[in-house]
Amino acid sequence: MSTADAMADVVARRRPAEKVLSGIGVTILMYEASTRTRVSFEVAAKKLGADVVNVAAAGSSVTKGESLLDTMRTLEAAGAELLVMRHATSGAPYLVAEHFGGNVINAGDGWHAHPTQSLLDLYTMRAHLPVAGGGAWSLRGRKVAIVGDLLHSRVARSNLWTLTAAGADVWACGPATLLHGLEAWGSSGVGGASERRFSVTTDVDAALREADVVMTLRIQKERMAGGLLSSLGEYAGAYGITRERLALAKPDALVMHPGPMNEGVEIAADVANGPQSVITEQVANGVPIRMAILSLIAGTRTGA
Amino acid sequence: MSTADAMADVVARRRPAEKVLSGIGVTILMYEASTRTRVSFEVAAKKLGADVVNVAAAGSSVTKGESLLDTMRTLEAAGAELLVMRHATSGAPYLVAEHFGGNVINAGDGWHAHPTQSLLDLYTMRAHLPVAGGGAWSLRGRKVAIVGDLLHSRVARSNLWTLTAAGADVWACGPATLLHGLEAWGSSGVGGASERRFSVTTDVDAALREADVVMTLRIQKERMAGGLLSSLGEYAGAYGITRERLALAKPDALVMHPGPMNEGVEIAADVANGPQSVITEQVANGVPIRMAILSLIAGTRTGA
Amino acid sequence: MSTADAMADVVARRRPAEKVLSGIGVTILMYEASTRTRVSFEVAAKKLGADVVNVAAAGSSVTKGESLLDTMRTLEAAGAELLVMRHATSGAPYLVAEHFGGNVINAGDGWHAHPTQSLLDLYTMRAHLPVAGGGAWSLRGRKVAIVGDLLHSRVARSNLWTLTAAGADVWACGPATLLHGLEAWGSSGVGGASERRFSVTTDVDAALREADVVMTLRIQKERMAGGLLSSLGEYAGAYGITRERLALAKPDALVMHPGPMNEGVEIAADVANGPQSVITEQVANGVPIRMAILSLIAGTRTGA
Repeated sequence: MSTADAMADVVARRRPAEKVLSGIGVTILMYEASTRTRVSFEVAAKKLGADVVNVAAAGSSVTKGESLLDTMRTLEAAGAELLVMRHATSGAPYLVAEHFGGNVINAGDGWHAHPTQSLLDLYTMRAHLPVAGGGAWSLRGRKVAIVGDLLHSRVARSNLWTLTAAGADVWACGPATLLHGLEAWGSSGVGGASERRFSVTTDVDAALREADVVMTLRIQKERMAGGLLSSLGEYAGAYGITRERLALAKPDALVMHPGPMNEGVEIAADVANGPQSVITEQVANGVPIRMAILSLIAGTRTGA
Repeated sequence: MSTADAMADVVARRRPAEKVLSGIGVTILMYEASTRTRVSFEVAAKKLGADVVNVAAAGSSVTKGESLLDTMRTLEAAGAELLVMRHATSGAPYLVAEHFGGNVINAGDGWHAHPTQSLLDLYTMRAHLPVAGGGAWSLRGRKVAIVGDLLHSRVARSNLWTLTAAGADVWACGPATLLHGLEAWGSSGVGGASERRFSVTTDVDAALREADVVMTLRIQKERMAGGLLSSLGEYAGAYGITRERLALAKPDALVMHPGPMNEGVEIAADVANGPQSVITEQVANGVPIRMAILSLIAGTRTGA
Repeated sequence: MSTADAMADVVARRRPAEKVLSGIGVTILMYEASTRTRVSFEVAAKKLGADVVNVAAAGSSVTKGESLLDTMRTLEAAGAELLVMRHATSGAPYLVAEHFGGNVINAGDGWHAHPTQSLLDLYTMRAHLPVAGGGAWSLRGRKVAIVGDLLHSRVARSNLWTLTAAGADVWACGPATLLHGLEAWGSSGVGGASERRFSVTTDVDAALREADVVMTLRIQKERMAGGLLSSLGEYAGAYGITRERLALAKPDALVMHPGPMNEGVEIAADVANGPQSVITEQVANGVPIRMAILSLIAGTRTGA
C-alpha cells in the first residue's frame, strides 16, 4: 500500500518513475477479453521501463493444459520474465507458475480470483476510511456489503479473502441462486479462520444497513439462460443499488464497482455517477497498485 | 499546414522529432477496423515521444452510449490524456469529448466525418497546386471533383467542409442513389454560407471537365445488397475513373483516393498507379499531418 | 551464425544491444495467426532499438493481389522500412518485395517457406553437433530425419534447402499421402544439385536409424477431412516419436519440433520434455537469430 502511495505520487506529479523494470521482458497474455486490466498493466509496466509484449490468445486454440504450458514455454524462451496472465480456467496461472522460470501475476482466472483488483479496491477504501483512534490502518469496525452475482465473480472471491484479512465485517448479498456454497464458507471463516467469518444473506436491506462500503458486481445476461435469474428487470428491482436503497447505508458510504457496469441493472446511473461513487478512482488506482506489484516483484528478483 | 511542413522535414531527414508528447498517454481506440489511420497515428505519436496504447474494441460490447462513456472513463482513469478514436456511430467522438478530461481526436465516425483525412488531402493538394499570383495559399480558382459514393463517405463529408473552406470549386458526383440529400446542402452552402456552395451532379463528364483534382471514393459491395447499385461492373462503366475519362480533366490534374481502393471498380489500375496519382503520397502525408495535429494539441495543453 | 552468437551473448548477459535499428520503422504484418514468430521478431527488433508496429490482418479483406500491394504501399508510406510478413499464400512476400522500397523478411508463406525458422533450427544444431576433425562447421556426415506432414509444411521445405546446403544427409519421412512430390525433388537434388539429394521414405525405422537429429512436424486435424489421414491415433501409432522409436537413433540424438506441438500425436510427451529435446532452445534461439538477421539487413542499408 505504501509503495502504491509512492507510485501514485509519481503519476500525479507526472514525474518519470524509477526504471526498476528496465530491460525486463513483461508479457501480458490474455486468454479472455480485457480492457481495463490489460491497459493498466501495460501502462504500469511501461512507466517502470519494462519491454512489454501483448499476446491475445483465442480460447479455442488452447483447450488442453499441455497447450497452455507449451505457450508459456514459448513466451519464456522468447524472453518473458514476468508473465501477466488472464485465463478462463480457474487455477490456470497456478499451473503455469509451477513451470515458469520467472514470475506469474494472476490477472483473473475463471471464477476463482482477481487479486490485483481486490488490492486496488482495498487501496481505494484506505484512501477514504481513516482508522478511528490511531494504530496501523485496517478495516476493523467497517462494514462492507458486496451485492450481486457472487457465485460467478472472481472479484468477489478475492475481496472476501482480502477484506476479511483487513478486518472488515463483510456481507455477501444476492439472490440465493447466486450465493451457492458461500454460506458454508462464510460460517467456517476464510482460510478456516473463525475471526474471518463473513455474513451471507439474500436480504439486501440487512446487507446495506449502516454499511461503510457498498460494492456492486456485474450481472451477466448469460445467467438468465442458465435459469439462475428470471430477468434483469426483476434483479434490478430486488437488488439494484438505487438512491433509495443506498440511503440505508452510512451517509458517506463508498459506492464501488469493478466494471464494466450495467447501469440500470445492478446499479442506477445516478448512483454510479453520484457523489459517493469512487468507481473511476478504482480504475485510476489500478495503475499505481500494479506499478507497486511489479516493482516489488522486481525487487525480489534482484534482491534489492 | 506549416507545422506539418516542419514535421515532414524531420521525417524525411530521419531526424528525431522534438518529444513534445513525452510522458503523455495517447490511447488509440478503434471500434472499427483500421490499418492506415491507426498505423499513422501510432507512428506519429511515438515519434513525438508519447506513451501509446492500442485498444481495439469489438462493436458488440459497446452497443449502448453508457458503455462507450464507461470505456472512455476507464481509459482516462488508466492514464489516457489524448484519445484518438474511431467509431461506427456518427457523433460518438463528440459525445465522448463532452465527458473526457483530455483531448479527443476524431479518427472517423460513421458516415459523418474523418477530419484528419481531409487535412492530409488538403496538405497533399497544397504541395502540388501553387497559388496563381501570390498571396496566402488557397484553392481559389481550383476545381475539385469528388466521384463515388458520397452518401456513405465520411471522407467526402469532411472534404466538402475543408475544401470549400479553402475556396475550391467542389463538384460532388455519383449515381443519384448515392448523392441523397447532398443537393440541398450544396445549394445552401456548407455551414449555410452562400460562398461555400458546391455543385452536385450525376454527369461524370461535367464533373471531370477541366478539374484540377479528381478524388475517387471506395465503392462498397454492401451497397448492392441495399439496392443502391445494380452491379460493381455497371458502376465501373458509368463512373469508374479510367484513362479516357481522366483526359477530360486538366492535363496535370491530381488523382486522389483515400483508400483502400477497389482497383477496376471506382478507379482503373493504370490511373491509380499512373503519373498523375498522388495516392501513396496521401498516405505518407498522414504521418506529418497527424504529428502536427498532436503537437499543436500538446501546445494548447502546456500553454506553449 | 556468428552474428547470432554475439546477439545470444548480449541477451544472456542482459546487456543492452547496439541500437543498430534506432529510428528505423519495422512493421510486423501477420495475415495468419502467429505467437512465437511474431513475439520473437518483436522482441528482437525492439532490442535493436527499432520502432515496431504490429498489424494483424484478417485474411478475408485481402483476397486479391492488388489489395496486398495496396496494404504494403500504405505501410511503406506510413514509415515501414523493414517489413516482416506472414501470409497464407505461397510467394506473397516475394511479390511484395518486388514493389516495396525497403526490405521484406518472409515470416512464413503458405506451404512454401519459413526461412528464419530453418536458420534457428540450424543454429540450434550447430550448438550441439561439433564438427568431427576440425574445419568450418557443417552438417557433413550427420543424418537428420524430418518426420511428419512434409507436404503441407513450410518449415520442412525451408529445412530441406538449408540442411542439404549445410551438408546433412536428410531423410524425409511420413505417410505416402503426406510426401507427395517430394521423391522427385529428393532424387534430383535441391536446386537440381546432385550433391544435395535427400532420401524420401515411408519407413520410419529406416529414417530414424542412427539419426543425429529427429525433427518432428505438427500434424493438423484438417488433414483427416481431406482424406490424407484416417485418424490422428493411427498416425501416432505409425509415425509418432515415442521413446521406443527414438532408441533407433543415436543415443544423444537431438529431438526438435518447430511448434506448436500436438503432444501424444506426432511426439510423445516424455520425448518432447525429455533430456534429448531441444525444443525450448529452438524458441529461445529465435530471438538472437532474428536479431542477427535484422542487424545484418540494417548493415546493408547503411553500408556499415
